[in-house]
Amino acid sequence: MIDNPMRPCFDSQGLIPAIVQDAESGLVLMMAWMNAESLALTVQTGETHFWSRSRQELWHKGATSGNIQTVVDIHLDCDQDALLVRVHSAGPACHTGAVSCFHHSFGEENL
Amino acid sequence: MIDNPMRPCFDSQGLIPAIVQDAESGLVLMMAWMNAESLALTVQTGETHFWSRSRQELWHKGATSGNIQTVVDIHLDCDQDALLVRVHSAGPACHTGAVSCFHHSFGEENL
Repeated sequence: MIDNPMRPCFDSQGLIPAIVQDAESGLVLMMAWMNAESLALTVQTGETHFWSRSRQELWHKGATSGNIQTVVDIHLDCDQDALLVRVHSAGPACHTGAVSCFHHSFGEENL
Repeated sequence: MIDNPMRPCFDSQGLIPAIVQDAESGLVLMMAWMNAESLALTVQTGETHFWSRSRQELWHKGATSGNIQTVVDIHLDCDQDALLVRVHSAGPACHTGAVSCFHHSFGEENL
């Protein structure tokens, strides 16, 4: 339900998907989930924070790896249920060491 | 559950988020949801198809507006639960006429 043109709509689990894009290269680095607390921390600290659904805990991206993502800007989409976060990234986004998490090419053979 | 390194993991509703990026400009255009059928149609026709959660129906992007999105390539992320679809877009992605659906700037005042 859209109650305010500028407020995020969290889903039934209190989450909203956040797309993280490298502000310089334009590369889409990852998609993760934010709850209200991690979104507030992201805005207030200027570094991305997410909610880990598998670990059920707040997650400060780069806290362990050092690959902090510094926020350049955030945009909400037209139906207010997705966020685009443009960042400067201190290193690879993916836990595999790849720059982007989107590194599996997908085609008809994967259906 | 990851049963195959190249297969998408659909959520409990049978959906996976799909990020659509303009292949030329690098602009992130929209995020929408795909089920297995819309993903297969996207791959097989080379034009984006989604599942509309609000209308509960298959949705061929541009069928009404003419703003077809032609697929350049598709990538699955490392944990296989999000897709990045790079496209050539025949027109604006947003129903408002904006090029991208991500046109609401978001900051501390929106928390």
